[in-house]
Amino acid sequence: MPTEDIQSAHIQSADATKQMPVVRLRDGHLTELDDTLVVEEPLEIRLGSERFTVTMRTPGDDFALTRGLLLTEGVIDSEADIGQIRYCDTGAAADADVPNIVTVRLKKPPISGRLWQRTLMAGTSCGLCGKAALEAVGRQTCPLPPASGVLSRDTLLTLPHTLRRHQTLFRKTGGLHAVGLFDGMGDCRCVFEDIGRHNATDKAIGYGVEHGWLPWTGDTPLILLVSGRASFEITQKALMARIPVVCSVSAASTLAVELAQANGQTLIGFLRDTGMTVYAGGERLSLAPDA
Amino acid sequence: MPTEDIQSAHIQSADATKQMPVVRLRDGHLTELDDTLVVEEPLEIRLGSERFTVTMRTPGDDFALTRGLLLTEGVIDSEADIGQIRYCDTGAAADADVPNIVTVRLKKPPISGRLWQRTLMAGTSCGLCGKAALEAVGRQTCPLPPASGVLSRDTLLTLPHTLRRHQTLFRKTGGLHAVGLFDGMGDCRCVFEDIGRHNATDKAIGYGVEHGWLPWTGDTPLILLVSGRASFEITQKALMARIPVVCSVSAASTLAVELAQANGQTLIGFLRDTGMTVYAGGERLSLAPDA
Repeated sequence: MPTEDIQSAHIQSADATKQMPVVRLRDGHLTELDDTLVVEEPLEIRLGSERFTVTMRTPGDDFALTRGLLLTEGVIDSEADIGQIRYCDTGAAADADVPNIVTVRLKKPPISGRLWQRTLMAGTSCGLCGKAALEAVGRQTCPLPPASGVLSRDTLLTLPHTLRRHQTLFRKTGGLHAVGLFDGMGDCRCVFEDIGRHNATDKAIGYGVEHGWLPWTGDTPLILLVSGRASFEITQKALMARIPVVCSVSAASTLAVELAQANGQTLIGFLRDTGMTVYAGGERLSLAPDA
Repeated sequence: MPTEDIQSAHIQSADATKQMPVVRLRDGHLTELDDTLVVEEPLEIRLGSERFTVTMRTPGDDFALTRGLLLTEGVIDSEADIGQIRYCDTGAAADADVPNIVTVRLKKPPISGRLWQRTLMAGTSCGLCGKAALEAVGRQTCPLPPASGVLSRDTLLTLPHTLRRHQTLFRKTGGLHAVGLFDGMGDCRCVFEDIGRHNATDKAIGYGVEHGWLPWTGDTPLILLVSGRASFEITQKALMARIPVVCSVSAASTLAVELAQANGQTLIGFLRDTGMTVYAGGERLSLAPDA
């Protein structure tokens, strides 16, 4: 997908930053100036008239965030389950500067037993541990199919540069995470930014849900690249979207590795322009130099 | 407080990292090796027999994390409200490798109306926004008293180096955040590490709660320094612990700045060895070079 289309995914990005007066000390010099900050505002997501969750997020792409969160939490299986998604436009919300309440109408009631956090909490009495967390995810989804294609080392090494090129809000503020989705040839499908890694992940996944290609059923490996650490919840979200390859520019946690291993997911950390660390699913990779 | 005492705050740090086999690509060379990863495991916190919350954290200092979370969520006012705090040692939890359930017995029932997240959700109908979040915090706590001492520029500029020196787990894994508390002369009171910024913040605050000096009532400025971004929840937690100065080595969000401004808190971002950006509360700072 060309750059133009990627940029057009950033609806409302004008609300994502704000000028504020600051005092800056740099190299011994004090300056008063207007600085560009990343905006953080609560977003409430409702299922019908019921409050589902509140998350602190960077405004913009709120419908993608909502779609992604509903998929990764197990509320919906695909775009087909969504009847309507819109901003609340009644009462005080109609007058708000930034719309902060999204209402979703589902075509069928959500299967509450599949919400993984609730499954984790409900399924344990006095033995909560990493194994219980893996089992809670396992009750929602199944392992990924074996690798049907192979990712080349050179393709992977280009991804961090491509992600940085699309981090337009980060360049202005220094305060956002980014998540990109890439196909097996390294072409970028979308990049989303948010003050929270989890939100950026949900926005990218929600974009794929809206356009009908997530959950992933393709034969080729789809790649999710996150600008921060790969914690359990990032690999869990990718697994719910059936994304076979998760890359992080930083470290992975033990539980993220264990979840990837248990589900046939490829997990790569410290992905930089010249190197990487492979934690799981190396069978999807060809790490010898390209001919 | 000398370094020895700071290190002793890291109980159980042996459980915080784990060796796992990885494949590493670096400068064109592929190596199979055992790498050191940061551990991530769920921790369940119970109030009596009631489940209060589950958080994904790095094991170690779980009682500090619990104390900090209870204070910053408004469940307790000080250490005096805690009757007993211990690991659950019955049932399956008794056999777990890592203890993951903490049970707290309070001396009096918590004032549930003060839990800020619930206040935020309960206090809004169709007008959720940043202002509502600020008001929800305002219903729990009041603004900080005016500055009674002044922090020097040179003191502030030493803090990032001191924090890095104490990030022992980060040096091994590259995968943890750190939060340190410092007094007005720049002396380090404690440093805690965790895969999550929020957990590291709660651990540091909980350490001060346990030792009786948080919530802060001192005349001199106490400083919280976080290795990541200063989001709304970090400044909210510091405010609940009555910490007058919050510093971040990275960016601050708009809502964090607005909360600090509304409550007389000093907020500094991009604190590095040679510079900083002051967002709020500059009256506590003397930014001219020391004589």
